Amino acid sequence: MDKIITISRQYGSGGREIGKKIAEHFGIPFYDNELITRAARESGYAETAFENAEKKATNSLLYSIAMGMSAYGSQEAGFSHLSLDDRIYLAQSDIIKKCAEEGPCVIVGRCADYILKDRTDVVHLFVYADLDFRIQRAIQIDGVPREEAESVVIKKDKRRANYYNYHSGEKWGKASNYHMCLNSGFIGIENATQLFIDFLEKA
Amino acid sequence: MDKIITISRQYGSGGREIGKKIAEHFGIPFYDNELITRAARESGYAETAFENAEKKATNSLLYSIAMGMSAYGSQEAGFSHLSLDDRIYLAQSDIIKKCAEEGPCVIVGRCADYILKDRTDVVHLFVYADLDFRIQRAIQIDGVPREEAESVVIKKDKRRANYYNYHSGEKWGKASNYHMCLNSGFIGIENATQLFIDFLEKA
Repeated sequence: MDKIITISRQYGSGGREIGKKIAEHFGIPFYDNELITRAARESGYAETAFENAEKKATNSLLYSIAMGMSAYGSQEAGFSHLSLDDRIYLAQSDIIKKCAEEGPCVIVGRCADYILKDRTDVVHLFVYADLDFRIQRAIQIDGVPREEAESVVIKKDKRRANYYNYHSGEKWGKASNYHMCLNSGFIGIENATQLFIDFLEKA
Repeated sequence: MDKIITISRQYGSGGREIGKKIAEHFGIPFYDNELITRAARESGYAETAFENAEKKATNSLLYSIAMGMSAYGSQEAGFSHLSLDDRIYLAQSDIIKKCAEEGPCVIVGRCADYILKDRTDVVHLFVYADLDFRIQRAIQIDGVPREEAESVVIKKDKRRANYYNYHSGEKWGKASNYHMCLNSGFIGIENATQLFIDFLEKA
């Protein structure tokens, strides 16, 4: 496998699990939401870091962006007009680009498909499933209380769609933004994983 | 194969060719755009048929719909307010439903996925490709003049999207409306066909 693989997924579709299995199959690193968020936080956008911004010295463009400063350290210039959310997004984008530069890997979530859209060595996958399947998984895998499960699934997906549409200006879940899309609920997680692997081996 | 398979496709993506190969592989009938349109026309919506509407006697609901009459023959009641386009759509929908009732088959285009959405024995596929790939196919397969190819491809797809969105109230090319979606240009027509067959064999 000489490709970078991004996986976008509806909540409860098993996209993260499929991504992990694909990474294991090809023996390449796996980066999920949580990891990217943590890495971006550690790179300097956290609120405490903001408080100490004046005391820190850095030449990192990423850090400067996250701090709302230009690369030359002026708080007037550059990205000081950006909201914290936008700074987090930029910090995460930088992490994602760095992961991709290191070589083949699987990256789940965080608009990775959009962030890496100009690279020609990236394959974009989308995983989705019917609502019932996703509700059952939310209950069984994530331990969401049964009575809240439907509204949790719908809200989480709404948040993912909004996040994606806001940052990319594109429509989340539009087939043509991905190279392959699968309904994991219809075919099952195991089959979906195998079909994606078959696809990636031909890619 | 005990399923009905619908294929929606961008113009130039090879969706029709893939559908034909899938039908051959499983030894099931293949219904394309042209065939459905012709069958619907023959069933009675054509303009000459309209002119002779009064002279004809029929008990067919489809015919009555196409003629803008209720099933009981009154031109006041029923569908007389529908445009010719809407009547054609209804006649085609009826043909598609009849094809599906006859058993496993492949149906390409004409909103078949939407028309059959309430059946549980139907698998919906979507085939798309990058613009360049589709332009090349329009030139090579359909003989579209090179200088017109890009605008022809874009216009044809716009028409397909409008047709689908108008009749279904849904968004054409939204991944979650299909069970599997593939970029045929990225993976090639042969590989795409094989991957769809693998998917269908697991479905």
